[in-house]
Amino acid sequence: MNQDYITPDPWSIIEDGFEIDRVQSSESLFSVGNGSMGQRANFEETYTGPSFQGSYIGGVYYPDKTRVGWWKNGYPEYFSKVLNAPNWIGINVMVDDEILDLFSCKKINKFSRELNMKDGWLGRSFEATLQNGVILKVDVKRFLSLEHEELGVIKYDVTPLNTDAKITYQPYLDSGITNQDTNWDDQFWQTTDKEVDQNQGFIRSHTLKTFYEVCSFMESKIFLNNKELNTQGESLQKEMEVSISFSEHVAKGSTLSVHKFAGYTTSLNHDKTELISAAKSILKIAIDKGFDALLQSQKEAWDKIWQMSDITIEGDVKAQQGIRFNIFQLNQTYTGTDHRLNIGPKGFTGEKYGGSTYWDTEAYCLPFYMATKDQHVARNLLKYRYNHLGKAIENAEKLGFSNGAALYPMVTMNGEESHNEWEITFEEIHRNGAIAYAIFNYHRFTGDYSYIPEMGLEVLIAIARFWHQRSTFSTPKDKYVILGVTGPNEYENNVNNNWYTNYMAKWSIEYAIENLRKVEKEFKDDYGRIIQKTALTTTEVDDMLKVAENMYFPYSEEHGVYLQQDGFLDKEMVKVDDLDKNLRPINQNWSWDRILRSPYIKQADTLQGFYFFEHHFKTEDLEKHFDFYEPFTVHESSLSPCVHSIQAALLGRMEQAYSFYLRTSRLDLDDYNKEVKEGCHITSMAGTWMSIVEGFGGMRVKNDQLHFSPKIPKEWRSYSFKVNFRNHILKVNVSHDGTHFTLDKGEALAVDLDGKTIEVA
Amino acid sequence: MNQDYITPDPWSIIEDGFEIDRVQSSESLFSVGNGSMGQRANFEETYTGPSFQGSYIGGVYYPDKTRVGWWKNGYPEYFSKVLNAPNWIGINVMVDDEILDLFSCKKINKFSRELNMKDGWLGRSFEATLQNGVILKVDVKRFLSLEHEELGVIKYDVTPLNTDAKITYQPYLDSGITNQDTNWDDQFWQTTDKEVDQNQGFIRSHTLKTFYEVCSFMESKIFLNNKELNTQGESLQKEMEVSISFSEHVAKGSTLSVHKFAGYTTSLNHDKTELISAAKSILKIAIDKGFDALLQSQKEAWDKIWQMSDITIEGDVKAQQGIRFNIFQLNQTYTGTDHRLNIGPKGFTGEKYGGSTYWDTEAYCLPFYMATKDQHVARNLLKYRYNHLGKAIENAEKLGFSNGAALYPMVTMNGEESHNEWEITFEEIHRNGAIAYAIFNYHRFTGDYSYIPEMGLEVLIAIARFWHQRSTFSTPKDKYVILGVTGPNEYENNVNNNWYTNYMAKWSIEYAIENLRKVEKEFKDDYGRIIQKTALTTTEVDDMLKVAENMYFPYSEEHGVYLQQDGFLDKEMVKVDDLDKNLRPINQNWSWDRILRSPYIKQADTLQGFYFFEHHFKTEDLEKHFDFYEPFTVHESSLSPCVHSIQAALLGRMEQAYSFYLRTSRLDLDDYNKEVKEGCHITSMAGTWMSIVEGFGGMRVKNDQLHFSPKIPKEWRSYSFKVNFRNHILKVNVSHDGTHFTLDKGEALAVDLDGKTIEVA
Repeated sequence: MNQDYITPDPWSIIEDGFEIDRVQSSESLFSVGNGSMGQRANFEETYTGPSFQGSYIGGVYYPDKTRVGWWKNGYPEYFSKVLNAPNWIGINVMVDDEILDLFSCKKINKFSRELNMKDGWLGRSFEATLQNGVILKVDVKRFLSLEHEELGVIKYDVTPLNTDAKITYQPYLDSGITNQDTNWDDQFWQTTDKEVDQNQGFIRSHTLKTFYEVCSFMESKIFLNNKELNTQGESLQKEMEVSISFSEHVAKGSTLSVHKFAGYTTSLNHDKTELISAAKSILKIAIDKGFDALLQSQKEAWDKIWQMSDITIEGDVKAQQGIRFNIFQLNQTYTGTDHRLNIGPKGFTGEKYGGSTYWDTEAYCLPFYMATKDQHVARNLLKYRYNHLGKAIENAEKLGFSNGAALYPMVTMNGEESHNEWEITFEEIHRNGAIAYAIFNYHRFTGDYSYIPEMGLEVLIAIARFWHQRSTFSTPKDKYVILGVTGPNEYENNVNNNWYTNYMAKWSIEYAIENLRKVEKEFKDDYGRIIQKTALTTTEVDDMLKVAENMYFPYSEEHGVYLQQDGFLDKEMVKVDDLDKNLRPINQNWSWDRILRSPYIKQADTLQGFYFFEHHFKTEDLEKHFDFYEPFTVHESSLSPCVHSIQAALLGRMEQAYSFYLRTSRLDLDDYNKEVKEGCHITSMAGTWMSIVEGFGGMRVKNDQLHFSPKIPKEWRSYSFKVNFRNHILKVNVSHDGTHFTLDKGEALAVDLDGKTIEVA
Repeated sequence: MNQDYITPDPWSIIEDGFEIDRVQSSESLFSVGNGSMGQRANFEETYTGPSFQGSYIGGVYYPDKTRVGWWKNGYPEYFSKVLNAPNWIGINVMVDDEILDLFSCKKINKFSRELNMKDGWLGRSFEATLQNGVILKVDVKRFLSLEHEELGVIKYDVTPLNTDAKITYQPYLDSGITNQDTNWDDQFWQTTDKEVDQNQGFIRSHTLKTFYEVCSFMESKIFLNNKELNTQGESLQKEMEVSISFSEHVAKGSTLSVHKFAGYTTSLNHDKTELISAAKSILKIAIDKGFDALLQSQKEAWDKIWQMSDITIEGDVKAQQGIRFNIFQLNQTYTGTDHRLNIGPKGFTGEKYGGSTYWDTEAYCLPFYMATKDQHVARNLLKYRYNHLGKAIENAEKLGFSNGAALYPMVTMNGEESHNEWEITFEEIHRNGAIAYAIFNYHRFTGDYSYIPEMGLEVLIAIARFWHQRSTFSTPKDKYVILGVTGPNEYENNVNNNWYTNYMAKWSIEYAIENLRKVEKEFKDDYGRIIQKTALTTTEVDDMLKVAENMYFPYSEEHGVYLQQDGFLDKEMVKVDDLDKNLRPINQNWSWDRILRSPYIKQADTLQGFYFFEHHFKTEDLEKHFDFYEPFTVHESSLSPCVHSIQAALLGRMEQAYSFYLRTSRLDLDDYNKEVKEGCHITSMAGTWMSIVEGFGGMRVKNDQLHFSPKIPKEWRSYSFKVNFRNHILKVNVSHDGTHFTLDKGEALAVDLDGKTIEVA
């Protein structure tokens, strides 16, 4: 049974009532972020109950020494960990010298949280009865500024309800934090400097090994019934902590508030010597504006985002809440302004997996950012991989490849491989194909070819070289085969001729050569530069094409489908529906060998290929493969339901499409995989967006035109979304009585709805 | 280039000259053991240079918490580690208050070691010039008594050569030891009690978690020019150490000796409360006998062993030294007197691999112990697995099997699985077959059927059940297949239809049923008991047979050979000879995926099957398979050359057989695999024995007769060995002029030499 405590609401994530065993789940779900930093929804005040503390700075990581049972040649020495950063949200609250702690207080009433997605803030309010009998009303509001990326803001109100009381606020900074998932219990941070005066505090620390300098800063103001006081704060210092203490005697019914302005300045964006002065100037801006004005600009900034990326769903509030939660988290995680950053699978909501970049970015996230942001955002995502090309070539050399062949890492932070399971690190090589596909997809959608001669072609050549060298000629098959791989379905390891991988290899080579020809004709200078840089010869090109043209694809005449890999039909082909329910999820109930020899599919594999290359196949073919593979798919990857939802919609199976949609859109809110406490599944959230826009909306690009064949689930009255197609903002509104279409910009643009072309003035 | 510093000698392992970077290699090669305890050849006196300290007690282990990078369901929680035990060999030597330390002394002359295999002692002598100018002559002799398994004896002589000197001996016991291969730097031992007086010392300690109680004990006597002194020892205690200090002023040219009698009494063999008293009674015996008498009985005990198990080789001293080293180490590791013990891959010479029992025992070691010991020794090895049957059934249940199916662990100490690589732990299941094969092999050789109705049949049924449940019916092949396995060749993981594994499965089922029938007829009571205990039904038997009869075996029509596994021929079939030498050993130069997709074979796999089931195939078939597979075999497992040597000899390829023989017999002495410092390869040493007796000697059992078709390498003048066949001791002497054959016992026995049957009176 999935969790079900989030109150359905179109614009907010709401929790009512306090339950200790929901705290960590809510810490994930109510996370806030602004693209350059983010944090779990930990409480500001002391909380001694079970909690998973997390505050993260985009791009600040630690190379944790690899830990494995049995070392294999080629394993990376380090795993780049998303790093739990110093805590700046902390505010100790004392009432008549008793610490406010929801875990130990006598009684809690009217506890509620709200993550207001429209305006981009996190709120919490409750009434607590302390052991000393004082009853308090507490209201907290917190947000990470989109306008000032280094700034976070907290407003913390306490009202004693049954008596006068002495209220003490101790806002603090704490750099004595650790990661839950450290391999060797290393300290990741070293504190080098502390400064604190009556209302400002600073801690300078740097990461060990990577030496990112971070200045955590804070300044606080005290208000009584919204009137600012000139209370003198008392500065305190501990080894890795600075705090400022404010005490006031507060009359029953009066409200004492602290406004805390805090955050980080880092050596990513400032000279190391200027971190504190940079912090001071941000604090000056914050103090001058004050809480209300900052909150107002926060609303406006989010309003801008929503104007372009909102999806409305009428008549199904849970579906509405789900898609907005997904869109909100994606925007909290990555704004696209900084090409050094990327989209980690858990964003700023947890530590698990480490690294920041998986093939998820190219395979699932790119379409969302292409369609809802200015196209330079998607271009930044591609540029990120271009900047890592050298490292990807080194990585391939480590594994015995040569001559500029590149293998992009499975998991990375700085371009180096982080992961260390041989069957994944060395064998899940299809990831290389997704990076080539993203280039194709970017050009197809944005129409911007310039990336390819400038950067993309070098990436495509290096990837094509990898596939060429990784293929083996099989005499018995008289074809080229690819041995020993793990496909997108990670419930098969070290298989031969995974259809998806072989198809990616063939296509990547052909696409690279096709663009080589085009650049040769149309971008002579770039062509010259690239040929010289890559030393690509015509013989090598011919050899590569020979491999592509003679690639082997396992096929079953009997079933008329391509086989996921060699020997797939030798398995005991029991469908998921005929499987004892108690055995699921199989990844929690079966030993690994049993999973591997079963026919069960963790996520779309062959169907993932049909999704990427839909335009290569007839719908009947898709249908045949969907009917063959879906019944064996357990969807134990967050990336599985979205692809199936899109394909089910295309095949007109709306009920199936709808149930897959719910599963992907509310995966974390309803905790389908029983793991949300570890963080949210950020990258699959982009899949949710796809399942509406490409699935129900049926959006496709064909010959430089945008096509739609919209459908609508019976549960919905209507839904609408916007896409930015080649700088034309289109809004599509689909209801049961038909589809309406509007184009914001004046220019004409050919589009197609339900197959009927409409010219728009 | 292999190491080459061991002086060739028929009866001794000899090292001349001291080299720091050989110390750890020699610590392995000169190890001593008596079956119930053993130790590396660490120095008695202080040595501050690089050294790998190791002293081990058979059956005393520690369950070290598993450490993996990525946990998989079904992994064992613990890895049972061979445990480095308290050090009792230590004797600090001070000369005019300067510590004798070969790493820091001024000069070393005439350093030599000898491992005297004929008499079973380790000797060391050298002349050292200390920093203080004193020149010493030192002679040390040490052995672990075969007669008194808990006793070790050291005689340490020091003679000042250039001056009178004050010599201080500090014999000590130290329980503050650790394992090099600990996963979490746990302390494995806790010291609970210490006792020391003028010449006796005791330390009681127990292992954590497993609570083996061990009393380390020592008593020392001092002699001047072989005349005992009544020197008063001075007792010293540290936290985990007791020592007794003796000082004497020794005239130039005189010799001061300490005789140290020491060892362990453990809760494996005594009541916990009586460990110290047991130690005292052993010490009494030792003191009464004294060093010379103890050494004499040591010689006699080894003489008994050699009388039966010696193999002589005339005309090739290196080959002679090699085989004797192997036989000596096997006898030091396992004597067969204690059915709780087994043969660890490193014996008492190192920690690596942990655990004590691998399939090596059944596949490689059993024949040696069957032929050179009383048959109860081999029976104890089988009984060991019978005693672990319950645990093997639990292990299979953990992996999803049921109804009494058993999967014996890959690595074990107490019957529980220790290993934690999914591709090995869960998939290298052929080990189950070796355990069934050992039962067959034991009966074939000893003629003792009684083990099967008493114990073996239950094991056979549980193993047959496993194979039955582990097989899958493949519709396309219309046969039973076994998916997702790792064969003996560990350079392939998670393959389908490994020929060796499938053949073992088919045979194990058929052999189990064949014996079920026989026991039903001939041992009615046992049959009733077993049927009741196993609840075996005729339907289950029929189903099992159906699987066996319809097992699938990959075969190549083109090459006329069985294929190691499905798809083997899709690989790039470049032979080892055509491989760049710099790339070898591939396990040190290639990433794991590259090894996996290569055709290279770590150790005999298909050929291992042809070795076990030679009697099922024609010699031409063996030849075909040998010619097909050997060229792809890199022999990077110590268990590979012996099988190839035997088969090369059978095929009359004596040069190849001889070079494989040298490689297996001198694997450690010449350090072929560059790892001898970690310990010796004990289990493969039994393979060396096989390659002479079964390879050159051509010994086979056919219809209750022992057959020989002897050959001799041209490098040898003659060789001879003895075997105990069904309590008849036969001696075979093979020379170029013919084969002589003698039978110790009177009875008649039919044997066959060179195909010609000889009746022996």
